[in-house]
Amino acid sequence: MSPITLDYAKCLTDRVGKHGIAVRDLDAAVPELASLTESLNRTRGTGWQRWRDLPFDPARREHVGKVRALVEKLGPDVENLVVLGIGGSALGNIALQAALKPATYNLLPRDLRDGPRLFVLDNVDPHAIGQTLTFIGNDDPEFRRTVVNVISKSGETAETAAQFILLRSMLKRMLGDGFADHVVAITDPARGTMRAICDAEGYATLPVPEGVGGRFSVLSPVGLFSAAMCGIDIDALLDGAAEMDKRCSSNDVLKNPAAILAWLLMQFTKRGKPNHVLMPYCNALYMLADWYRQLWAESLGKRVDLSGKEVFAGATPIKALGTTDQHSQVQLYREGPNDKVIGFLEVESFEEDITIPHGLDAENLNYLQGQTLSTLLNAEKRATEYALVESERPNFTIRFPRLDAHAVGQFIQLWEITTACAGLILNIDAYDQPAVETGKKATFGLMGRPGYEQWKMKVDAALDSSVQTV
Amino acid sequence: MSPITLDYAKCLTDRVGKHGIAVRDLDAAVPELASLTESLNRTRGTGWQRWRDLPFDPARREHVGKVRALVEKLGPDVENLVVLGIGGSALGNIALQAALKPATYNLLPRDLRDGPRLFVLDNVDPHAIGQTLTFIGNDDPEFRRTVVNVISKSGETAETAAQFILLRSMLKRMLGDGFADHVVAITDPARGTMRAICDAEGYATLPVPEGVGGRFSVLSPVGLFSAAMCGIDIDALLDGAAEMDKRCSSNDVLKNPAAILAWLLMQFTKRGKPNHVLMPYCNALYMLADWYRQLWAESLGKRVDLSGKEVFAGATPIKALGTTDQHSQVQLYREGPNDKVIGFLEVESFEEDITIPHGLDAENLNYLQGQTLSTLLNAEKRATEYALVESERPNFTIRFPRLDAHAVGQFIQLWEITTACAGLILNIDAYDQPAVETGKKATFGLMGRPGYEQWKMKVDAALDSSVQTV
Repeated sequence: MSPITLDYAKCLTDRVGKHGIAVRDLDAAVPELASLTESLNRTRGTGWQRWRDLPFDPARREHVGKVRALVEKLGPDVENLVVLGIGGSALGNIALQAALKPATYNLLPRDLRDGPRLFVLDNVDPHAIGQTLTFIGNDDPEFRRTVVNVISKSGETAETAAQFILLRSMLKRMLGDGFADHVVAITDPARGTMRAICDAEGYATLPVPEGVGGRFSVLSPVGLFSAAMCGIDIDALLDGAAEMDKRCSSNDVLKNPAAILAWLLMQFTKRGKPNHVLMPYCNALYMLADWYRQLWAESLGKRVDLSGKEVFAGATPIKALGTTDQHSQVQLYREGPNDKVIGFLEVESFEEDITIPHGLDAENLNYLQGQTLSTLLNAEKRATEYALVESERPNFTIRFPRLDAHAVGQFIQLWEITTACAGLILNIDAYDQPAVETGKKATFGLMGRPGYEQWKMKVDAALDSSVQTV
Repeated sequence: MSPITLDYAKCLTDRVGKHGIAVRDLDAAVPELASLTESLNRTRGTGWQRWRDLPFDPARREHVGKVRALVEKLGPDVENLVVLGIGGSALGNIALQAALKPATYNLLPRDLRDGPRLFVLDNVDPHAIGQTLTFIGNDDPEFRRTVVNVISKSGETAETAAQFILLRSMLKRMLGDGFADHVVAITDPARGTMRAICDAEGYATLPVPEGVGGRFSVLSPVGLFSAAMCGIDIDALLDGAAEMDKRCSSNDVLKNPAAILAWLLMQFTKRGKPNHVLMPYCNALYMLADWYRQLWAESLGKRVDLSGKEVFAGATPIKALGTTDQHSQVQLYREGPNDKVIGFLEVESFEEDITIPHGLDAENLNYLQGQTLSTLLNAEKRATEYALVESERPNFTIRFPRLDAHAVGQFIQLWEITTACAGLILNIDAYDQPAVETGKKATFGLMGRPGYEQWKMKVDAALDSSVQTV
């Protein structure tokens, strides 16, 4: 299996002038990076770094075994799989599906799919949820082959809880007492609101493993179950992740893509380029950029460092899509403020390519006829890379030899280790999310949850604004 | 019809402290803004500002008449509408469809849809295009009811041309000589490569109006045709745009939402907040944030001002989705660098709401039961707004009374006029995109188009980078 590679030449001064980083600076950082890598190797598998061991036994054997057993038990007849979750309990599921299944997957008849249609609710928008429920509830025999997969460690995330109460009620109404056989809960194995519900109602469950935070959970049952249900090769995914893990454990820093990527991006952040664009030239990888957005933003965006000093650390992840965003964002990326680093994702070889046929009589378009779409796509990527270099805009490329589960697994582990390493460089806690608490409590207050009454008053007092409305 | 409103109270110092803007600064800017508004009123409908008159006769009468006649001629039996275009010839089409049609639209049986399934290709990704073509080509009787809508002013945009050559060949192969009846081209009425092809092959055509750039074209036939085909009320859309246009023509600046929005966002840009997030609390509006991304980035991201001085102007548009991104981006928005302005989109009343039912025995979740999803969604928005204010992060809200074509039309015209006004404030040309040219020429070179040979050599020389690959 070929590895995915990181090409960072266009981050350096010899390509992008004063907006780049000098090779001697990178060389000088090697001892520090070796020491950070050693530190990560020492603490791996402890505390909140237990995500790091997901691609390895015994965690892997346990999770894959349980997931496969459950997929087998549910059988090949499931027609709709509805995932309930949000944030880290949805982004990975969506990203794996988009990367490794056709864009038309849900439209296909059952015999052309490897599994059920997949719906990830991922919000509490009444129209979007209503439309999905109307669709799946419309055909009674098909609805009887629906599985609801609720993902929540505690069970108390308001959005997931609302989705769950709704779907549980629908299952119960339409299927009667056997409805519990149609629920798979991925939750805390020992405690919490969802655990108690599972125990009371007898759902099949899979664990959210201890020490694995939401945004680092895609290679746990959280991401693996829906992937396996839809026929994604989860062993290849974990193999890829394990291989990348080895490369990113290397003290030979110049051979360690995570250490280099983390250091470059944190250097750029310090040097006035805190906007980090991920721009796949491949539609299927676009949702992985969404997954990256959470990982990068929530892990690194921190007010205080580990010593308690106020630092307002962080970098802003931005997702873009090639070639599409050449016609939308590249004007800004080349001529606007030089405050970005652009990361391209490139697929070297597309499994099913398409040749642009001959036969149109138009002289100015002859050059296209007889060439493949992937040739055009990758030429556009290369042209954009060139245009950015010409404007002294640093950029790098993560190259996928092909688009498959093995490569996607590598990509996931690469960014997770890169994030952990960037957290060390910034000297912040990459695993907490303290700023999300205020919003949760304010929501409870506004929704009338007992015990949070004062929050409603605080919000109402702070937000009244009839004057400045036009 | 109720208007959409702009609530900018949380941009001001009394809410977000030193990170806000003082009311006296806004008051002091009123004369300048009145003069900019007058200037826009004077030049409207001239040069590249002819988009401004799209919601008004005679342009409107002409376009709506031609669009409706063509929709009627094609009849109600069209099963697939495949839009070929990219950038400004795709983003608006996608955004209107997402905003005003169900998320499950393409999944629905024909009698539950108001028109054909809609596929907007919008890229040259071989997998995505192959999957779509396999899907529509799979059923021969349905394929006979396919209409291909190619959108390109010149016909020479490489991506659209490649899509077109491919689809034309497929139509011709499967439908024979009558294939031309299945093509609708939206192109230059008088000249260019696509015009010549249309004349030679006899396609139905609609005009890309003179003086309307791609990113300002959604309310021309470019956006209206696919919308009307899918049953969107294009008159309501244009009515909304016309009403907003009147409000944004007002010299009474404090009643002019475009002038205020443009001024606030350009002030924030000057004051270290050049990242402008648009965050709908409504799935259907998410793709309008993509449309906004092009408008804002490509119009304002400019190296030189009108005097030729190097300024590297521009602001970085970012799209986000509430509540989903509360679990992904809000940690960064509250605790990371204070370099953003967050724009919320809120829908006050959802036409079809859903009540979270009673019946789950879980004390911590009782507060949700019996409430509606829209109550939860809007409480989350309000909670996030509050949390941002607490962290001194400026934000504003554009409030939709309801989600309909009238409101969407207002929103579109609001942002287009805001963009024009911001261009005046920055003293740049908001209507060109010079930086896109290099990439186009480099692509031609890499694809072997005659006359561009030297570009391939330049690119290859600039990009070789085996050394820095890991």
